[in-house]
Amino acid sequence: MTANSVDAAVGFVRENRARFVEELKALLRIPSISTLPEHAGDVRRAAEFVAAELRCIGMENVRLVETSTAKHPGGHPLVYADWLHAAGKPTVLCYGHYDVQPPDPLDEWKSLPFEPEERDGNIYARGAVDDKGQMWMHVKALEALMAAGGGKLPVNVRVIVEGEEEVGGEGIAAFVREHGDQLKADVALVSDTEMFAPELPTLCVGLRGMIYTEIEARGARTDLHSGMYGGAAPNPFVALAEVIAKLKDADGTILIPGFYDNVKKPTDAELKAWKALPFDEEHYRETEVGSVSLTGEPGYSVLERTWARPTLDVHGMPGGFTGAGAKTVIPARALAKVSMRLVPDMTPAEAFAKYKSYVESICPKGIVLEVRLIHSGDPIVVSTDNAYVRAATGAMREVFGTETVFVRGGGSIPIVGDFERELKTPTVMMGFGLPDDNLHAPNEKFHLANFYRGIESIVRFLASMGA
Amino acid sequence: MTANSVDAAVGFVRENRARFVEELKALLRIPSISTLPEHAGDVRRAAEFVAAELRCIGMENVRLVETSTAKHPGGHPLVYADWLHAAGKPTVLCYGHYDVQPPDPLDEWKSLPFEPEERDGNIYARGAVDDKGQMWMHVKALEALMAAGGGKLPVNVRVIVEGEEEVGGEGIAAFVREHGDQLKADVALVSDTEMFAPELPTLCVGLRGMIYTEIEARGARTDLHSGMYGGAAPNPFVALAEVIAKLKDADGTILIPGFYDNVKKPTDAELKAWKALPFDEEHYRETEVGSVSLTGEPGYSVLERTWARPTLDVHGMPGGFTGAGAKTVIPARALAKVSMRLVPDMTPAEAFAKYKSYVESICPKGIVLEVRLIHSGDPIVVSTDNAYVRAATGAMREVFGTETVFVRGGGSIPIVGDFERELKTPTVMMGFGLPDDNLHAPNEKFHLANFYRGIESIVRFLASMGA
Repeated sequence: MTANSVDAAVGFVRENRARFVEELKALLRIPSISTLPEHAGDVRRAAEFVAAELRCIGMENVRLVETSTAKHPGGHPLVYADWLHAAGKPTVLCYGHYDVQPPDPLDEWKSLPFEPEERDGNIYARGAVDDKGQMWMHVKALEALMAAGGGKLPVNVRVIVEGEEEVGGEGIAAFVREHGDQLKADVALVSDTEMFAPELPTLCVGLRGMIYTEIEARGARTDLHSGMYGGAAPNPFVALAEVIAKLKDADGTILIPGFYDNVKKPTDAELKAWKALPFDEEHYRETEVGSVSLTGEPGYSVLERTWARPTLDVHGMPGGFTGAGAKTVIPARALAKVSMRLVPDMTPAEAFAKYKSYVESICPKGIVLEVRLIHSGDPIVVSTDNAYVRAATGAMREVFGTETVFVRGGGSIPIVGDFERELKTPTVMMGFGLPDDNLHAPNEKFHLANFYRGIESIVRFLASMGA
Repeated sequence: MTANSVDAAVGFVRENRARFVEELKALLRIPSISTLPEHAGDVRRAAEFVAAELRCIGMENVRLVETSTAKHPGGHPLVYADWLHAAGKPTVLCYGHYDVQPPDPLDEWKSLPFEPEERDGNIYARGAVDDKGQMWMHVKALEALMAAGGGKLPVNVRVIVEGEEEVGGEGIAAFVREHGDQLKADVALVSDTEMFAPELPTLCVGLRGMIYTEIEARGARTDLHSGMYGGAAPNPFVALAEVIAKLKDADGTILIPGFYDNVKKPTDAELKAWKALPFDEEHYRETEVGSVSLTGEPGYSVLERTWARPTLDVHGMPGGFTGAGAKTVIPARALAKVSMRLVPDMTPAEAFAKYKSYVESICPKGIVLEVRLIHSGDPIVVSTDNAYVRAATGAMREVFGTETVFVRGGGSIPIVGDFERELKTPTVMMGFGLPDDNLHAPNEKFHLANFYRGIESIVRFLASMGA
């Protein structure tokens, strides 16, 4: 692709910004919440929306790939597309997801989660940045390149967009395992991460893995009156509290025996680079977290704790009486939703086994515990020394006018590990979110300037790969 | 009242059993759940239903007494009635409540909670025994006495029926404090307790008090992604677990400093009588509780633990993600609903102060805790050596053919303390529930044979008081 063509593609992006945003809004209006069965129809609608657009911009072999099986009922479809006519050029696999997290708590949203609203240069909606907005950058970059190239792309491209990223990605994992040849590529491009700071182009080169679990505690056969039975009947919430209090100490050190055994220390070079990043812990506490103090293992910086150390959180404790006022019930059972973030070289299977065995060993009196794995993902660290990473940093240098920093992410994108393990395909994680984008929280947003710069960066990255 | 008239009243009860049950069903169909604001209209309907029936059977001065005030908004009405023409005879204050507990978890009910169903000689519905069914015994006993007495009762009677028993009874407490003269009586009759065993007539002579509280834990300003912030942001559920785990030890001994200071040991005579009761701990564990083992303070029997020892329970932990599947959120806040049962000579004020101060002293890092009192009630022990108790045991001997046992109850009926303290009126707690009636739980029921025997016992009790 000539420099002129690249400029033409970038020009196309700039001329069509307003339309791109309107299209994104239409996608954001679809409440494709993958974890809630009642939204299964919306999830499929979002898949069809993405497929229709891929067809419209000139991608080929566009189709929905069903993922529902007997073992994985209720699976949401993948969207696949390709354009494979750039003979002799590399193949890029563009990955994204069209599903979103539930929007609750609803009352903390300033505008409705599925009624996108522009305010102060941002677009607010569930999924704005995670990941509909970032996935849409891929689609729009491809459209611009097609337009500037007279219906041709500078590289071979496969697109795979999933609808289960927020629920563990079981469908795409199976597809990668069983039909990996259909996703054969030299490099995967994933835009589901964030920039370290505004104006600072960022590549994510490591991700934590995770195990998401439920502990169910059962006591009495049926709910009991706490007046009549208090003092004799086991209380599942008290039991879960006892268990949870034994999972971490007051500092946040995880007490599961052997849990840290396989934790790999980041390299000295990484630690040095992280120290050089513009990070102000007090500013982070005040503006991002907003708590009276931060927590976590002593002796590790915030970046180490959130990028390179395993952690454990409780997300909710369903059961019993949760309405307003009072109900004096000893519930027959209660649940705790507990997840752990994992780092290299931990494995989900080993972490879960150690956790389950420990939880069972501390089961309180009168209680029966059941520990269930809901989903899991491997931790990963990717190489930074290859042509793809150089193409990415070059593209972003053009757009941002500054050098790219390498960071890790605390979250999990299990598919990156699958690409590496199953397809032997390295991944470039080029994300354009911001730290205050309220991912998974009320008032999720995407900074529109980054939406535009993201599309331009991807245009330049793909053009450079095909140069 | 002559023996003939008593027989006539009892005959009236026997002839009208089926009608009494149908009327009770109509009352049970009204979902008068006092803790849920959306049912305020239903609560009032239940009050009007009771008032209409009291008018119909010949009671006088029937009226709803509003309890809603600026300080107590949304208060539910009291139903008052009297018949005061038995010159020279004692006055009996009949107390009951027409409000009920929420029915959840709904999916564990075999028939709908507000569609009463007769099965195996029981009537199943929320409120069947607590307390609509037992309150209806009072109304029907009065009707029978009126019918047999040609429109006259053998004693003076006041009726007060409240709609806030399940939410702390603030309205009736204020009414007793401010308008106690309108409830002036020699003895109060309360039927909101149970028989120790089938066929064993029982008077309850002691009740535990309670404080019902909420602990709110706040961490980050908004919900955060556990991948990005896990390891730095405080987790309110983990914090609440830590706090709860420090409230009781593994055996169930409460760890709040000074909490047991004012606990009064039952008399040796009481302890001896309790040991003589037909109680099989293994049978109780298996059939009533249904857990793998019982819990509670070592060194105390089940009856001591549930009647004469303070206890602490957690009823629910609202907040965070409680849907199916996974949401990787660190919620900004979480709640724990925690109540404590109190015994003589503890006071709610002192217990709450000690609890609050202790909880605040163990507040985990990064978390702000707020401890709120939702409602409270005093513990009580009533005298057994008076004419009213003798009249009650005599009445039940007639009906059941056996001697009455004296027990305590683990639950709380705060109004009994108010009657004693504010009105100097002793209470006879003559209840006809059974231990397996599923009070406050799914499949609440009332054994119809006890409904009938309860009405007859009350007929005989009132007749004997007026002899």
